[in-house]
Amino acid sequence: MPGKPKRACIVGSGNWGSAIAKIVGTNAARLPQFDDRVTMYVYEELINGKKLTDIINDTHENVKYLPGHKLPPNVVAVPDVVEAAKDADILIFVVPHQFVRSLCSTLLGKIKPTAIGLSLIKGFDRAEGGGIELISHIITRQLKIQCAVLMGANLAGEVADEKFCETTIGCRDSRLAPGLRDLIQTEYFRVVVVDDEDAVEVCGALKNIVACGAGFVDGLGLGDNTKAAVIRLGLMEMIKFVDVFYPGSKLSTFFESCGVADLITTCYGGRNRRVSEAFVRTGKSIKQLEDELLNGQKLQGPYTAEEVNYMLKTREMEDKFPLFTAIFRICTGHLNAKELISCIKNHPEHMNSNLIPQPVHSKL
Amino acid sequence: MPGKPKRACIVGSGNWGSAIAKIVGTNAARLPQFDDRVTMYVYEELINGKKLTDIINDTHENVKYLPGHKLPPNVVAVPDVVEAAKDADILIFVVPHQFVRSLCSTLLGKIKPTAIGLSLIKGFDRAEGGGIELISHIITRQLKIQCAVLMGANLAGEVADEKFCETTIGCRDSRLAPGLRDLIQTEYFRVVVVDDEDAVEVCGALKNIVACGAGFVDGLGLGDNTKAAVIRLGLMEMIKFVDVFYPGSKLSTFFESCGVADLITTCYGGRNRRVSEAFVRTGKSIKQLEDELLNGQKLQGPYTAEEVNYMLKTREMEDKFPLFTAIFRICTGHLNAKELISCIKNHPEHMNSNLIPQPVHSKL
Repeated sequence: MPGKPKRACIVGSGNWGSAIAKIVGTNAARLPQFDDRVTMYVYEELINGKKLTDIINDTHENVKYLPGHKLPPNVVAVPDVVEAAKDADILIFVVPHQFVRSLCSTLLGKIKPTAIGLSLIKGFDRAEGGGIELISHIITRQLKIQCAVLMGANLAGEVADEKFCETTIGCRDSRLAPGLRDLIQTEYFRVVVVDDEDAVEVCGALKNIVACGAGFVDGLGLGDNTKAAVIRLGLMEMIKFVDVFYPGSKLSTFFESCGVADLITTCYGGRNRRVSEAFVRTGKSIKQLEDELLNGQKLQGPYTAEEVNYMLKTREMEDKFPLFTAIFRICTGHLNAKELISCIKNHPEHMNSNLIPQPVHSKL
Repeated sequence: MPGKPKRACIVGSGNWGSAIAKIVGTNAARLPQFDDRVTMYVYEELINGKKLTDIINDTHENVKYLPGHKLPPNVVAVPDVVEAAKDADILIFVVPHQFVRSLCSTLLGKIKPTAIGLSLIKGFDRAEGGGIELISHIITRQLKIQCAVLMGANLAGEVADEKFCETTIGCRDSRLAPGLRDLIQTEYFRVVVVDDEDAVEVCGALKNIVACGAGFVDGLGLGDNTKAAVIRLGLMEMIKFVDVFYPGSKLSTFFESCGVADLITTCYGGRNRRVSEAFVRTGKSIKQLEDELLNGQKLQGPYTAEEVNYMLKTREMEDKFPLFTAIFRICTGHLNAKELISCIKNHPEHMNSNLIPQPVHSKL
């Protein structure tokens, strides 16, 4: 499709936002189908008396959130989100999830009606009345634009270091997919596009619940076999959750970077695993550990576990998700972590073999 | 099915054989459908001047291969394999894979014609003329009995410690599956039976190739994202390999313990990963490291990589399996480990998105 070069805007400039700006800026400069100029919305703050946007535009380095990495000079920091986004054809959302709603309110009516979104935001938001709402759905609903998602085993620092990795774009509309891929893919950052948009996004949130389980196993000193079993059962519950609440997904999506790869990384590294291990070892509450280890920031796993539990309870399906349910109860202090294994010993997955005279793995 | 209680025999008594003897012995004593007496073939050796079989039968402990764990008293060590196996209805094979052929020759005609096998042996054997032959296929061909397989994230020591884990039984014949499951499953050792016998067994061998790749990544210091990508691409090549050489398998089998769980454990722990990391860090050859770190024992991954490469070359499919191919070439010194990533940057998986106008993930 020839036409005017497309303009990209990065809405957000944290660690991950800056790493992706490096990629997007380079591709926009390199490829004819994109306008060179990439705007990056930067929440203005003063660093040693100097505006962060000025520092970025002068030195091409986000000294606060991605120090030591140069951004391409065609990435322009803009302190006003409307100004940054107004001419963009592709809006890349990469802000903490709690800011999405207000950001969308600010942008409503101020962006191109033909713009499309790409959300890099991991985690759910709480739906009105309880349960979860996907971030891409919030963006679509509030801004009335299509919104694809990008998730994967993508620690920002390593991406900025140009270390090889993979990522998954979930994009329902196959006409939009090639453009998004071209804007994002590099020699070291490999993109696979799948149409299972919701599954891709849900993976990015649910993995944090599983990581809590992996952390409990580490804290209890249960060893490699048990940890592998908990991660696997977690993956099976992720698949089942998507099947129940976002039906129509493909099993193959869970083999993508957004699925198994991101899950592995999160369950072996990652703060949810780490804090959950400390939870067992110290006996402190999650709240206490958030204060001590995360400067009071909320840990994603327990928060997601709570919202997921709300949804499971509503459907009377807690017993179909014994791992998610146990993790929720442990995080809230209603179950001792030592009971984790007894909760999953008779997991529905263990009934799912072809011995049982009922349709098994039927959707596979 | 009522009938005479079935007799089980463990053919092998190493670390894993002894751990499984503990489980099988307990279940045989507990369940009416099995004969209490479980024989265990023990290759006779002298421990401080005393026969190992006598020690096991007197103390109920395999002091050499599983010290510190009591075997049930109904597990009887027998130094003659024919004597151990002759009355058995279920033969559980758990010896190093290089002994399988001669063992089967010894047993041919000396076992019950109605006996069935269950192979716990990980790894291929070399087929005559090159390529690989599955251990269960060797058993079936040589002994003319059916042979199911058991694979999973099952470090023997942790199983003996009764730490919770899962395992996968691959059993083509659904009439045999309940009996095998009942003999193996305990409260802490959870069994899922699938009918994809070959896929289950192939996973147990191919994971060691992937673990070499994970070890190279660790040795090169490439970080978590890259490691996750290599593990994921390894999983995709495992799936593809099964699809090409053992067609008809289900994708869901790779989500079982034998698939993703065992792969994870092997790529984060395990000797293949460890030696491969040392290979990169020290610059020594695999042979040297086998001598230094493994007392001259062969490392499974490089050996399997070689046999797999033979099969891929025969089908002119090396380029469809760039990770397996690169790992083979690195192990044999024909490629520098630093080139690993450049070999997988344009992996066929990265072409597999729904952007490309061809049937993708078609078998999924």
